[in-house]
Amino acid sequence: MVFANKVVLAVGAHPDDIELGSGGTIYKAVQEGALVIALYMTRGGKTADTDLRMRESTESMNILGVKDVFFENFPDTEIPESFEAINCLEQYALKHKPDIILTHSINDTHQDHRKVGWLAMSAFRNVPKVLAFESPRVRSAAFLPTYFVNITGYVDKKWEALSCHVSQNEKRYLAYESMVNLASFRGSQVGVGAAEAFEIVKYVES
Amino acid sequence: MVFANKVVLAVGAHPDDIELGSGGTIYKAVQEGALVIALYMTRGGKTADTDLRMRESTESMNILGVKDVFFENFPDTEIPESFEAINCLEQYALKHKPDIILTHSINDTHQDHRKVGWLAMSAFRNVPKVLAFESPRVRSAAFLPTYFVNITGYVDKKWEALSCHVSQNEKRYLAYESMVNLASFRGSQVGVGAAEAFEIVKYVES
Amino acid sequence: MVFANKVVLAVGAHPDDIELGSGGTIYKAVQEGALVIALYMTRGGKTADTDLRMRESTESMNILGVKDVFFENFPDTEIPESFEAINCLEQYALKHKPDIILTHSINDTHQDHRKVGWLAMSAFRNVPKVLAFESPRVRSAAFLPTYFVNITGYVDKKWEALSCHVSQNEKRYLAYESMVNLASFRGSQVGVGAAEAFEIVKYVES
Amino acid sequence: MVFANKVVLAVGAHPDDIELGSGGTIYKAVQEGALVIALYMTRGGKTADTDLRMRESTESMNILGVKDVFFENFPDTEIPESFEAINCLEQYALKHKPDIILTHSINDTHQDHRKVGWLAMSAFRNVPKVLAFESPRVRSAAFLPTYFVNITGYVDKKWEALSCHVSQNEKRYLAYESMVNLASFRGSQVGVGAAEAFEIVKYVES
Amino acid sequence: MVFANKVVLAVGAHPDDIELGSGGTIYKAVQEGALVIALYMTRGGKTADTDLRMRESTESMNILGVKDVFFENFPDTEIPESFEAINCLEQYALKHKPDIILTHSINDTHQDHRKVGWLAMSAFRNVPKVLAFESPRVRSAAFLPTYFVNITGYVDKKWEALSCHVSQNEKRYLAYESMVNLASFRGSQVGVGAAEAFEIVKYVES
Amino acid sequence: MVFANKVVLAVGAHPDDIELGSGGTIYKAVQEGALVIALYMTRGGKTADTDLRMRESTESMNILGVKDVFFENFPDTEIPESFEAINCLEQYALKHKPDIILTHSINDTHQDHRKVGWLAMSAFRNVPKVLAFESPRVRSAAFLPTYFVNITGYVDKKWEALSCHVSQNEKRYLAYESMVNLASFRGSQVGVGAAEAFEIVKYVES
Repeated sequence: MVFANKVVLAVGAHPDDIELGSGGTIYKAVQEGALVIALYMTRGGKTADTDLRMRESTESMNILGVKDVFFENFPDTEIPESFEAINCLEQYALKHKPDIILTHSINDTHQDHRKVGWLAMSAFRNVPKVLAFESPRVRSAAFLPTYFVNITGYVDKKWEALSCHVSQNEKRYLAYESMVNLASFRGSQVGVGAAEAFEIVKYVES
Repeated sequence: MVFANKVVLAVGAHPDDIELGSGGTIYKAVQEGALVIALYMTRGGKTADTDLRMRESTESMNILGVKDVFFENFPDTEIPESFEAINCLEQYALKHKPDIILTHSINDTHQDHRKVGWLAMSAFRNVPKVLAFESPRVRSAAFLPTYFVNITGYVDKKWEALSCHVSQNEKRYLAYESMVNLASFRGSQVGVGAAEAFEIVKYVES
Repeated sequence: MVFANKVVLAVGAHPDDIELGSGGTIYKAVQEGALVIALYMTRGGKTADTDLRMRESTESMNILGVKDVFFENFPDTEIPESFEAINCLEQYALKHKPDIILTHSINDTHQDHRKVGWLAMSAFRNVPKVLAFESPRVRSAAFLPTYFVNITGYVDKKWEALSCHVSQNEKRYLAYESMVNLASFRGSQVGVGAAEAFEIVKYVES
Repeated sequence: MVFANKVVLAVGAHPDDIELGSGGTIYKAVQEGALVIALYMTRGGKTADTDLRMRESTESMNILGVKDVFFENFPDTEIPESFEAINCLEQYALKHKPDIILTHSINDTHQDHRKVGWLAMSAFRNVPKVLAFESPRVRSAAFLPTYFVNITGYVDKKWEALSCHVSQNEKRYLAYESMVNLASFRGSQVGVGAAEAFEIVKYVES
Repeated sequence: MVFANKVVLAVGAHPDDIELGSGGTIYKAVQEGALVIALYMTRGGKTADTDLRMRESTESMNILGVKDVFFENFPDTEIPESFEAINCLEQYALKHKPDIILTHSINDTHQDHRKVGWLAMSAFRNVPKVLAFESPRVRSAAFLPTYFVNITGYVDKKWEALSCHVSQNEKRYLAYESMVNLASFRGSQVGVGAAEAFEIVKYVES
Repeated sequence: MVFANKVVLAVGAHPDDIELGSGGTIYKAVQEGALVIALYMTRGGKTADTDLRMRESTESMNILGVKDVFFENFPDTEIPESFEAINCLEQYALKHKPDIILTHSINDTHQDHRKVGWLAMSAFRNVPKVLAFESPRVRSAAFLPTYFVNITGYVDKKWEALSCHVSQNEKRYLAYESMVNLASFRGSQVGVGAAEAFEIVKYVES
């Protein structure tokens, strides 16, 4: 029950990133009593209409039990590693006082993903737990997860959330089989039925 | 067609290790015209009768197209990191002149697996390509594969081989789903339908 | 309250290793309602009488709230990486069904410490959380902790436990200042007053 | 004959980078029947006239058997990590459908080199083989090659190509001895007469 | 007496960074006869008046025996990874011909710190010794020092220097206890009373 | 002049290992006024008569200016990772009080080499500087040197020492060209004519 009464802030580069990387964990956190907040740094304008993408992600997060969904407007594919962006994240931390951050890994081939990973490292220096989730674009030669959340029983709910992203349905990693394979593989690594895997940026057990 | 006309020597700690880690690759190599030789360092006496296990592995390798199957008799669960064991492997190298070694990773939680990984590193110093396959026991916090073999189309054949190991059928990682999940996950990391993943000990493109 | 209702098995090479590496964490776990079991693989005969050392460690662990203290009798300074030793640890796991293991790191300059780290990796493959603590002999060029337990408020109790080891009081790292410096430094890395640091061998949040 | 019938796209930051890092490999690939395309991201204006440098590199690549030589015009010493630059590389991938990329490593002390390494990681996510070559400026404390191409017999041709860069002939690493030393050292690491060494970004054996 | 007759150039992002990371080492170097030059890339305007911060750092460095204190004017919290910044550092190297650089690590959570680390890697490629000091913001999961300077006997002088930074006295890591804990911990790792720890970027013993 | 008035203890697995890894450094140390002691853990009986090998190494070390040459008698190719072996090394440390250890790397494919690396890590915990030299058998995928000794001007003397090993003259890495290539390559990495490269196990600048 690590998530009970905790505030979890999930930060993704684009609509669908948070769901893909940590949808099962978020749903589990909500079930355990966490307050989860979702923040997307862009509105995903490179691959579809931004209003549509925001609607899809809002619906997706609602399915996972997340009410507080925020969208910043940094440029899709060109999120800057700027003070403005760091400060933006710091304001969320100051306002919501998260106990746990779920965000991108710096070991990712997508430029926006790794930039968000670096921004989070700067911005959330006072948050006790910062975890970096696995996107379909993490570097296979560098991403080494050591923290796993058992999401057995929550995989279907994760799929329900992912399937909101109708505008992105040509992405092969947004297929049901991809999601199940990943969850099953990560589960098999640690002896459970299904898991999401995270790199630890920082983890303090208070 | 990297395997055409090559000699591949696969070295596993126990009957079933080679198939699990590289069954698809071996079948592919045979299809492409490689001569594949399988060597098991123990006879797997800890979990079943050794004769039975040898029969199962021989049958399994035959299904993959491997005729030359050898069994040494080092003690199961206590393979030594001895000169005798290194020398044993060197003799295989001198006799068969392999171009490619497929064997265990030193980043494995099973003591026999990592010992074989170290023995191979000592013994096969003159072989141009030494690749370490993924067992169900590799260390999730350390195993970082960078070499992937596309085994799309060969997964069913791998399953046919694995299913020879009737004596081991309580191992959960010897289930069809486990095999498919792993192959699909490793494939998804590199954009193909199914793959086996390897750490590179040494790789020379001649 | 990660430790509430959990079974924690702490495994050290010698009397005093567990206390040094995780005394604060153990006391905290006990306070939160965990059942903690301590196992020493040797009786520390190289530096003092074994009966004396066992008495000291038993007293030390009692102070931390640990009632179940076990001593195996592997040779001090020559703990083997044998099946017998792995099996010994597996028996403890089968009997006590631990949720969390606290043990040595493989990244340690002391041969016994790193052997116990490897033994634990083999033996506790089915335990969801395996954490490697920091001994005074970890390799400064390799030990990279990512998991920290806030032990603010428990440092004096840790000292009380450490000070039972009268027979070892010439070891400079068994001084009060050493203990406080380490706890304060590890705390400062993660923004708390005092902490113990661990490498993650495996961590599943169930 | 890994290169037979393959399309190889080599991407360097400045005229002379491709030749230095992979001149022997490129010549070998051409001999084996590959189509090799060379792309320079800048025209090298910081150290000589850009027309001169383009002529030198074109001549150099022609000697290696490369007909298709392209020059973008990103600013020398300030190649941006921008979407424009990523997109530029993606267009080459879409047009030429490379099987193999040869480019810079992210573990390089030259800012342009490592930027090209990161750009390539983003842009070539769908190319099966991405290899990072060794420049004279790679970080000795981080560059760890695991893939070696035997260039025995091709070293003189590499020198012929390098010696086209008359405008750069004060660079000590453009000396014959430097080239031979590097090739011989990398060869000695893997038991051949001469080699070029690469980090693997991604390698799929199809 | 490694510092005797050497030129040491210390480069920090903000006033107080150099003192924090290497104040003891600098004082020791001065005592041994080194010429030490301090360069701050910003004037620290984000946290106090820049004139005040420059006065504080100048006074602080004077206490350590450093007469040559320079301030560039790159924007605090937004130091760019630009050619201009690299060139700025190269000019210092050309003018002062340093034997040893002391600067930030690329493994730091503060964006300015890691940028300075990367700039230094580009700019000081011809300096034989480049060492990266430990800031209070280095990444606990990545900073691995292997070079330690014994500063036993110099800790009080370091404190004298740090205490000049009156405008920053709310930073918890600028407390006496923090400084002593860090120095004592790093000392204990290598068996001395107090030490400062560095990552090696490059180290040539001439 | 880091070596002036220092005691250097060089520990190799077999006759010729010390010379190969650090012959230039040792000669330089002697020139600067160090007392150098050489210890071979085996007598190299696997590849020639032990008396002959001891004579060759003694002569070789004498050429480098080393008078104190010791030979233990651990079994060639089977050096144990035992307390006896650790204790043996500790006795040398207690007797000779070395300031600097030069020995094998744990990242070596030869079993004896890496065992000596681990033994040294245990035994020399109180020596301030422990450096691991580069053998012809270090793991190319793991050996990452960060400490370099400029041996420009000493390469011919190193060759004079190496050429004493007449009984080993079929080893290709004992050729003049191999030695020069390695020295030149390592030199080129750090901007000097010739260098020997070392991993740092521990380095304290007192």
